[in-house]
Amino acid sequence: MKRTDRVGAIIRILSQHPNKVYSLSYFCDLFGAAKSSVSEDVAAARDLLERMELGRIETIAGAKGGIRFISKISRKDADMLLKELKERLSEGNRILGGGFFYTSDLMFDSNLVQGAAQIFADYFLDKGADCVATIETKGIPVALMTSHMLNLPLVVVRRESKVSEGSTVSINYISGSSDRIQKMSLSKRAVTPGSKAIIIDDFMRAGGSVRGVQDILAEFDVETVGIGVLIASKKPEKKKVENVFPLIYMGEVDEETKTFDLAINSDVFR
Amino acid sequence: MKRTDRVGAIIRILSQHPNKVYSLSYFCDLFGAAKSSVSEDVAAARDLLERMELGRIETIAGAKGGIRFISKISRKDADMLLKELKERLSEGNRILGGGFFYTSDLMFDSNLVQGAAQIFADYFLDKGADCVATIETKGIPVALMTSHMLNLPLVVVRRESKVSEGSTVSINYISGSSDRIQKMSLSKRAVTPGSKAIIIDDFMRAGGSVRGVQDILAEFDVETVGIGVLIASKKPEKKKVENVFPLIYMGEVDEETKTFDLAINSDVFR
Repeated sequence: MKRTDRVGAIIRILSQHPNKVYSLSYFCDLFGAAKSSVSEDVAAARDLLERMELGRIETIAGAKGGIRFISKISRKDADMLLKELKERLSEGNRILGGGFFYTSDLMFDSNLVQGAAQIFADYFLDKGADCVATIETKGIPVALMTSHMLNLPLVVVRRESKVSEGSTVSINYISGSSDRIQKMSLSKRAVTPGSKAIIIDDFMRAGGSVRGVQDILAEFDVETVGIGVLIASKKPEKKKVENVFPLIYMGEVDEETKTFDLAINSDVFR
Repeated sequence: MKRTDRVGAIIRILSQHPNKVYSLSYFCDLFGAAKSSVSEDVAAARDLLERMELGRIETIAGAKGGIRFISKISRKDADMLLKELKERLSEGNRILGGGFFYTSDLMFDSNLVQGAAQIFADYFLDKGADCVATIETKGIPVALMTSHMLNLPLVVVRRESKVSEGSTVSINYISGSSDRIQKMSLSKRAVTPGSKAIIIDDFMRAGGSVRGVQDILAEFDVETVGIGVLIASKKPEKKKVENVFPLIYMGEVDEETKTFDLAINSDVFR
């Protein structure tokens, strides 16, 4: 095998499983190559990925060490992605009345949520989280992709307790948008007590659901170390949770003109 | 930029968005390189991916032509993945009684469902599907990953009709496992009449839910051209849908010994 081949293969394998640690010997065995030569391949792969802003290769020292790929979205691609999201959101026929709007096509678009997930993964990389949590249903795709980028398990809080979840813990919470009491439940097997979670969801108005997820995680002694949402409405200004990282802010819907303001969160480009 | 750099970048970019067509000029602009040189890079990338069984690069002719990456899982990796799935499924403490068992940790494991999705995408690649459909909740991750590999939109059928789905069509269906009448609903905006769908789900017993999804799609004049499930129970032998492609077959649960037979579908390796 030539260097070009080995570098290409390293990039394909590492980037398929972001944040997963591969030992150098894994590649030595795969290529039938010496460690010194694989080290040079990795250096070449790292160099080109950084230059092209296509991600980062990190070296982890120690017995269990090796290399891992940190997925990164370039500023240019993040900018393009958020502009696309903003544009598609502002299509007028999304407005359903009662302050609701249709977003399922966006939340179930794998390329769009993959890009959003890369932004979240980048932002929450160093929070020391042990899992990514969300509540069914529309937040699952972006939360899954974020969990994939971070190589963490995904925890899905259910609206109802299902037989197939085994024993569960349930809580009641106030949904901000409907001001009604709703229920959510989480399987006792789903999380490790004492661990840390990032909460990812598709949309936040007052923050009732996300607060609910935070509370149900707290029942398991799981600490929330970050909250990311694709879209946050500007109002109410006072949310039920703090330190939320939204990608897009949404102003109030004018049901007559069928328009609303949208603004990209500039913190994405810090 | 050197050849190694360009080949590595091509592999990273193409494989991030499987099945998406990129024009050669995209890479010419990105690298500031001539078409002849990019063509040689692509040939080198194609060659190495095939040799390493890491995927395939296809050329599409014509004005809208270009190249695209077809994600492929090697026989060895598929074998490892299914053995892992089988092993993790057979952990005895999954059995919940009443024939139910806990699988959420597997269905929400992004690396596992990514591998399963690669098998599905490979199997259903040439079916001419326009979308991937599933029913909430546990099938969403594997269906999303399959939709990503095929670069198709994901359509999620809901258990209840939600305000945020706009106008919906609902049907009743008989759930095989509980023999009860249940409801499912699909937004009118979610599918294009006259198009084709692949249905992907996590688990099938009698096939009631999948049959329901097929029926609700048919209400929109959407034809089902393939059905894939991660796990299918061996009984009942007679399912409510035909031509299902499962990855794992599951025998009956012996609740006393807390064991059940599992068998990998050998068709995966045809």
